[in-house]
Amino acid sequence: MTEPKIRAIVWGCGHMGQIIIKYLKDKGVELVGAIDRNVSRVGKDAGEISALKRSLGTFIHHPDEAKQVFHKANANVCIISTRSLMIDIYDSLETSARHGVNAITLAEEAFYPWNTSPDLTQKLDKLAKEHNCTLTGSGFQDVFLGNLISILAAGTHRIDRIQAIIQYNIDGYGSSVAAQYGVGLSVEAFKQQISGYTEPFPSWYMNEWLCAHLGLAIRTQKQEFWPITNIKTIHSTSLKTDISVGSVTGMKAVVTTETEKGVIIENQVLGKIYTPDEIDTYECTLVGEPTTTLTIHRPATAQMTCASLVNRLQHLIDAPPGFVTTDKMQPPNYWM
Amino acid sequence: MTEPKIRAIVWGCGHMGQIIIKYLKDKGVELVGAIDRNVSRVGKDAGEISALKRSLGTFIHHPDEAKQVFHKANANVCIISTRSLMIDIYDSLETSARHGVNAITLAEEAFYPWNTSPDLTQKLDKLAKEHNCTLTGSGFQDVFLGNLISILAAGTHRIDRIQAIIQYNIDGYGSSVAAQYGVGLSVEAFKQQISGYTEPFPSWYMNEWLCAHLGLAIRTQKQEFWPITNIKTIHSTSLKTDISVGSVTGMKAVVTTETEKGVIIENQVLGKIYTPDEIDTYECTLVGEPTTTLTIHRPATAQMTCASLVNRLQHLIDAPPGFVTTDKMQPPNYWM
Repeated sequence: MTEPKIRAIVWGCGHMGQIIIKYLKDKGVELVGAIDRNVSRVGKDAGEISALKRSLGTFIHHPDEAKQVFHKANANVCIISTRSLMIDIYDSLETSARHGVNAITLAEEAFYPWNTSPDLTQKLDKLAKEHNCTLTGSGFQDVFLGNLISILAAGTHRIDRIQAIIQYNIDGYGSSVAAQYGVGLSVEAFKQQISGYTEPFPSWYMNEWLCAHLGLAIRTQKQEFWPITNIKTIHSTSLKTDISVGSVTGMKAVVTTETEKGVIIENQVLGKIYTPDEIDTYECTLVGEPTTTLTIHRPATAQMTCASLVNRLQHLIDAPPGFVTTDKMQPPNYWM
Repeated sequence: MTEPKIRAIVWGCGHMGQIIIKYLKDKGVELVGAIDRNVSRVGKDAGEISALKRSLGTFIHHPDEAKQVFHKANANVCIISTRSLMIDIYDSLETSARHGVNAITLAEEAFYPWNTSPDLTQKLDKLAKEHNCTLTGSGFQDVFLGNLISILAAGTHRIDRIQAIIQYNIDGYGSSVAAQYGVGLSVEAFKQQISGYTEPFPSWYMNEWLCAHLGLAIRTQKQEFWPITNIKTIHSTSLKTDISVGSVTGMKAVVTTETEKGVIIENQVLGKIYTPDEIDTYECTLVGEPTTTLTIHRPATAQMTCASLVNRLQHLIDAPPGFVTTDKMQPPNYWM
């Protein structure tokens, strides 16, 4: 590394933050601060609770002490992996910006927040410019639902439709996610409680990013939620109960974007309780001339998510000040 | 398109050139010249013999008349799809450069010719600079064995090994390719005639490109050729004969690169006469943290090759003068 050493604050020391702390250490990034609102983590050594499983001498503070952490740390990046929406991570981004510290977050909305939270994003953009730092969102979607599709497109003569399908086992994500996906509901109850859900699904922002990156103006964008049921009783480990035949075991969330140039972008996420023969898959098809389907079986999504973010740190530092979404940055690259 | 119109000469009107001519027309590129050494094509309307199958009013000339074609055409790009080696395409690149016309070629060696043909490449680099134009190589490898792997790497924390495997049916490429792959030979004869082959296999240049792009210094690079035999008699349509049990039905060509940083790059090409159940595949695995395998079944290689090249035309025009390999250009993108 010829660049000055990166000094990072990790805000959010849950599953993702714990992997990120290890990756930072592996890359020679110094952990100079750690913040988490979970009281069971506050006061602990961030290295010890991380995937690294050894002391780094950096202790976890509650968000109420965030200003003191920033004041002491002399950080040049802050990595936020807490919540999904701009409104929920606004305070952490604002705190970072006010201290002139570049921030990057896994929050799905931050990947492309310009349309869904324009006011918050413009406020943060202004603040970041005033304090000469950059704010952005990254993660799995930056590489696998953004730049990878863009490169695949470069090997295609004519694109009519871009279709991404991701399937994952929601039993690995705790009971609140299972409930959010309607697991255990009847199909009727799913239709009443889930189908009309209006808050943008995470892939909403990914389609918007892709359109911005490919230079496609959006004509319409919609989301639909379809219940998935099973023909055999299956057990949910997260809900600790059997899901009976005909009940909902998960859902298919489809975000469809029509563009002015006629290209359709469709993102399908299938989150469900698996039967024994099912595996996680990532699949992307460009329909056109020629039609190409690219598949990744059993993607290690959590590791890919954290690696994608950590590999972006140098770009974050080098980017101009403001809220700069990654569609406006150079493509991500492997950082050795 | 806000850029001035692209005016292209197509040099080489075989299988690839014929697809390229259609793609150019679809993208609004004007075909202003066509050259082919095959006397059965000379004098024909390039549009009519192309995948477009209709007249473009541009007639095919023999390479002996290349200077006149360039003189008349007022082209700003020349697309060369004739042979694989720098020494074999040197004249066409030189002619293009002397006329100040940017040239892009499918020739495998031109993808990264710096180590295997340094003198020719430097001579062309100098000439292109003198005439203020750019020369480069592109094709399938630019997207699928170069930039796609680079993006996949950006979603990986630690790479130990990069392994690309391409399998294709050599029966689709005529009898000379089948002979080159040792089809019909005994294993003994294969070992004597093919195994020690020293001319770089096409993937040789792809590994070098990838190392240059990822910033990996090469320690060693080697190629090995292994015969593939079959347990059942199979028919070769290109050789119009049955291949008996135990005889060679194709080969596996492996180019392995060891880098100073310890990352190994291995490119395997399996070219063989297929049994009925076999299909073309492209597979790339990054072994590390995490390990990820990306697969494309039945890639439409010819279309991908031509699309990758045509999508590069604007970058070719925008690049600085000289021989500029695509590892030094911005990543390829879909051109609408």
